Amino acid sequence: MTKGQDTRQGILDEATRLASSVGLGGLTIGVLAARTHLSKSGLFAHFQSKEALQIQVLDNAAAHFRRVVVGPALAAPRGEPRLRALFEGWLSWVEAMPGGCPFVGANTEFDDCPGPVRDALVSHQRDWWETIVRVAQTAVGEGHFREDADTEQFAQDLEGVFLAYHHVSRLLGDPQAARRARHAFETLVTAAARRAA
Amino acid sequence: MTKGQDTRQGILDEATRLASSVGLGGLTIGVLAARTHLSKSGLFAHFQSKEALQIQVLDNAAAHFRRVVVGPALAAPRGEPRLRALFEGWLSWVEAMPGGCPFVGANTEFDDCPGPVRDALVSHQRDWWETIVRVAQTAVGEGHFREDADTEQFAQDLEGVFLAYHHVSRLLGDPQAARRARHAFETLVTAAARRAA
Repeated sequence: MTKGQDTRQGILDEATRLASSVGLGGLTIGVLAARTHLSKSGLFAHFQSKEALQIQVLDNAAAHFRRVVVGPALAAPRGEPRLRALFEGWLSWVEAMPGGCPFVGANTEFDDCPGPVRDALVSHQRDWWETIVRVAQTAVGEGHFREDADTEQFAQDLEGVFLAYHHVSRLLGDPQAARRARHAFETLVTAAARRAA
Repeated sequence: MTKGQDTRQGILDEATRLASSVGLGGLTIGVLAARTHLSKSGLFAHFQSKEALQIQVLDNAAAHFRRVVVGPALAAPRGEPRLRALFEGWLSWVEAMPGGCPFVGANTEFDDCPGPVRDALVSHQRDWWETIVRVAQTAVGEGHFREDADTEQFAQDLEGVFLAYHHVSRLLGDPQAARRARHAFETLVTAAARRAA
């Protein structure tokens, strides 16, 4: 990376942490300027507009997520071990961000806001959904899940386990949230593995 | 209700619908004035501050939720039928609001914002959590769930089914989201009912 790219990446990483706390909607060039002690005009030169900044923050968060969650999971053995690595990485991802997963907030902030930010968000979330489905399919392929396991059902259920964990740990501050999330994961895996009656 | 109370209630209902779409954080006296065609000074006279308005919107949404979801469910027979009524009412609640459940957005907007709005939100969410647990306990009492069913685990799992439904239907626009949520509910109920090995 050139020095310019390096600076830009540093700002984007800071913006991503900020979005995790204040929400993507709260991430304006002005707020970012105050946080980074850079001039608004300098930030405008980098990011052009609030929307462009928000989209680049989503892209940056998704790249980071692929690096720390998806990549390592795909290196685990196919099937249940890979699915478990994906889930554990996803839980750790929440802890690594100051305000939890930046996508969780963005999802509800932008679900009613048609436009390029929402489009970028949907695109990233579809990628993630398909990753879960694909990894669940390796569990079918390896015989860890039964042949007719519904992998889209599994993806929605796993989203639920994660979102409930995020909610119960971060808003309600319940120290049992992670234990319950892991228990729910085991229940889902067992249900998908069980022979159909 | 007096005419004044009636007017105030009408404004609060409009503010609640607005919060459902733009988020509770986006609900300022200015935004509400533009929506209701009332003067900002008139709204300030009713609500004093943005924070007070946000708290009253949460209280109003919670009262509405008790009226249309919790109340009718508590009229259903104890145990599984009551739990089912609670869950179905919860799903319908999302459809009845222009931007989905106002609590779902508020949860991630305020989880990192200590203060009276977050306190009010946590209080309402604890009430709701305890309602789920209490109704799940009636299922234990009626013998629909096994004696050692973990009703707090059930509450977190049900939160997950709901949050995933909200996310997959509203952001991803997947028409199968409700069907999968109902399937997940049946799986949870069956798992809680199954005799421990």
